[in-house]
Amino acid sequence: MSGEKNYGVPESVVKRLPRYYRFLRELLIEGKLRISSGELSEVMGVTASQIRQDLGYFGGFGQKGYGYNIKYLYTRISDILGVSAGYRAVVLGAGNLGRALASGAVFTQRGVELVGIFDASPEVIGTSVAGLIVMDVAELEEFLAACPVQIAVLTASREAAPGLVERLVSLGVRGIWNFTDRELSAADGRTTVHNICLGDSLMTLCYEIGQAEEEYHGKKTETELR
Amino acid sequence: MSGEKNYGVPESVVKRLPRYYRFLRELLIEGKLRISSGELSEVMGVTASQIRQDLGYFGGFGQKGYGYNIKYLYTRISDILGVSAGYRAVVLGAGNLGRALASGAVFTQRGVELVGIFDASPEVIGTSVAGLIVMDVAELEEFLAACPVQIAVLTASREAAPGLVERLVSLGVRGIWNFTDRELSAADGRTTVHNICLGDSLMTLCYEIGQAEEEYHGKKTETELR
Repeated sequence: MSGEKNYGVPESVVKRLPRYYRFLRELLIEGKLRISSGELSEVMGVTASQIRQDLGYFGGFGQKGYGYNIKYLYTRISDILGVSAGYRAVVLGAGNLGRALASGAVFTQRGVELVGIFDASPEVIGTSVAGLIVMDVAELEEFLAACPVQIAVLTASREAAPGLVERLVSLGVRGIWNFTDRELSAADGRTTVHNICLGDSLMTLCYEIGQAEEEYHGKKTETELR
Repeated sequence: MSGEKNYGVPESVVKRLPRYYRFLRELLIEGKLRISSGELSEVMGVTASQIRQDLGYFGGFGQKGYGYNIKYLYTRISDILGVSAGYRAVVLGAGNLGRALASGAVFTQRGVELVGIFDASPEVIGTSVAGLIVMDVAELEEFLAACPVQIAVLTASREAAPGLVERLVSLGVRGIWNFTDRELSAADGRTTVHNICLGDSLMTLCYEIGQAEEEYHGKKTETELR
């Protein structure tokens, strides 16, 4: 699908596309029509040559002096990333994180339609989140039979997670966005599971704080020594 | 700090350490004392040679036949990542995401102590989250003067975010974990800002779904042709 549309863009470049997508989106909202690799480099904090190299794969619209056609670039990148594929999603787990994701703009801004949110706890079932009524996860099969989705967002407990993945795979869900603190994979080898471990990012931050402090104090000593 | 302790471990390896940390943690909880690179490779889905190469930097405890001393490895990795640095954190924004992060185990499991949560909205101020009372963000300066922290978690609105970063930097916060959908950086060049854009990960998932479907149907056609 999006693969046929990826114009042979290398994975390394594709990985950077969501960020281009975000910045181009901002520029469109600001009403900008064209941008030079130099300007874009300023905004994104990436070298202009990197930008020319990345966007070069789309060809044709980096005209010297004119810069890039933002709308065109945005549309092509949307195509490649599957924004125009019209995927639908359900959220499993209506706790704080599930509610945060459902209430935010993360789905709509990426062309994904959130069609249902589920939970197992009687206190939560029936409450409303982002205009949706939280359904009993026991009704998942029935719901997905009537309204198939490609994406499931997992914010359930680490205990419930593996069982849910099995059910989702058997229900034909193609992508699982897993926020439980347990790494999961799909047995069928067809379903993509994205394990989001926020803790890893916190640890990297702690590490970088340590590195930055050391560098800072290193610099300080150097200056003092002069 | 953690830098002095990083035994010259390359950044590329350090990036993989939080994941080792998680799996070694699980193994310790299960009461395991030693593990071979082969077993660890099974659990983590990484090649045994990659594991031997990564853990080789810590030296000494990959004894042939005996495997790795899990506790020792866990401790060394904790040191490098700054888990033992005893960082403290505040959360700015007590909405769903702020509550989700504050209520989860993400901080305690990484040795970070959450000491305060702030919001600007009168409806939220005074409510309790994870045993903490939500404070008025106007009291941020006073609070951090009495209780300095190294880390601030930003789940505020994209409008409020840049102003908050300025305040945090002037208050001596060293690391900002930014969940607002706006990329931020610190002017002082000393404070580390980690921009978490969940939408990017959702887009990559959409892309991979497309790729996997294409591959699947490709394979299917091949089989049909046989």
